[in-house]
Amino acid sequence: MNPTAAILLIGDEILSGRTRDSNGNLLAKRLTAAGIDLKEIRVVPDEPDAIVSALNPLRAAYTHVFTSGGIGPTHDDITADAVAAAFGTGIDVREDARAILATNYDNPEDLNDMRLRMARIPDGAKLIDNPISKAPGFSLGNVHVMAGVPVIFAAMLDSLLPTLTGGAPVRSVSVRIDRPEGSVAAGLAALAQAFPDVSIGSYPFVTSGGFGTNIVARSRDIERLARVEKQLLTFR
Amino acid sequence: MNPTAAILLIGDEILSGRTRDSNGNLLAKRLTAAGIDLKEIRVVPDEPDAIVSALNPLRAAYTHVFTSGGIGPTHDDITADAVAAAFGTGIDVREDARAILATNYDNPEDLNDMRLRMARIPDGAKLIDNPISKAPGFSLGNVHVMAGVPVIFAAMLDSLLPTLTGGAPVRSVSVRIDRPEGSVAAGLAALAQAFPDVSIGSYPFVTSGGFGTNIVARSRDIERLARVEKQLLTFR
Repeated sequence: MNPTAAILLIGDEILSGRTRDSNGNLLAKRLTAAGIDLKEIRVVPDEPDAIVSALNPLRAAYTHVFTSGGIGPTHDDITADAVAAAFGTGIDVREDARAILATNYDNPEDLNDMRLRMARIPDGAKLIDNPISKAPGFSLGNVHVMAGVPVIFAAMLDSLLPTLTGGAPVRSVSVRIDRPEGSVAAGLAALAQAFPDVSIGSYPFVTSGGFGTNIVARSRDIERLARVEKQLLTFR
Repeated sequence: MNPTAAILLIGDEILSGRTRDSNGNLLAKRLTAAGIDLKEIRVVPDEPDAIVSALNPLRAAYTHVFTSGGIGPTHDDITADAVAAAFGTGIDVREDARAILATNYDNPEDLNDMRLRMARIPDGAKLIDNPISKAPGFSLGNVHVMAGVPVIFAAMLDSLLPTLTGGAPVRSVSVRIDRPEGSVAAGLAALAQAFPDVSIGSYPFVTSGGFGTNIVARSRDIERLARVEKQLLTFR
């Protein structure tokens, strides 16, 4: 059994539609490659109750929970405090985090009270390195708290992911069929039945040339996958 | 108080990272414009238990729940059955849905058993018009079930959203023109200008016979709609 995961995206800007999230997609791809099964993504507003209400069932249900957003210096950055509340632990400015943050500012006065909020770390958490803007993320238990800015999120992920244990990576093959989904559905159903250990998904698309279908098969077993691919190619 | 909403995206392909969702962002923008407060987005796998477990709390918590994905003809399209299970209602091929679906196929034999799955509608649901590929979505209670293919999702949303924001029901007429979109675009633009109170959408398609265009006009005013339909018929 592979480890499982959920992603919790925190941000009013995603829910209003102003921002189209990219961190979820990046992390989904990275988890798949690492052999960690992503089972759920949630997006909630920048509200403590919403974060706590989502986080507690997710951290109970999955091996890992990854959060994105709400750890900057402004008044609406409340993720760290909400995570501490969800765990029922204390939270305060931590000296190691403050020292790391200070390296980002030539003038000590620039590390003002608002920026110091970024050194608030729940008791018992491990810091996640942020090579871009220093302000660290953190892991508390199985919850990994990262920034929302995509380039910083990606950098934190590079710091964090190698430390987590993955199962065997899931391989995939993709076969494009330039016919509508309905014309291959019966064949696919039979194939799925013959290969219960291979996950077979069907993704219709529309182009100016007409309807088509991408078939994606996924498995940890390369040989079984190759047999399914061979069958899929006959559908073309 | 504005109405509230959640979006439930159903799709292994989003969780694997293979597809970067766009329907959530489109709907978020449309809801914001319509004065409906989007409070949560969830992505779950193509698994009946996962859909039911997410859907029941969401439909209890928010005014509306919008789903995307899993209503095509293949074995992994299980959303309609999962929604029926969440509500504890029956589900079967419904005659009006079957009749709509049949208009998409010149040869009756092409409406095979797998494609007929797309006419499975839970008891008591209202159909959502799909001018692109006919297979309808549906609303059951406060849950609105739509396709995952972005162009079809967008067209269903155009059918559904005006009915949710109060006032007189929005009527629609659909005119099929067996010519490419570009050959009617100028005429459509002039028509849209002459009838600013009628929403006119254009949905290109491709068949073995070549390019064509479905024009869908929507309005609360039946007389204005009839005048637009009369004009559209002259485009044929």
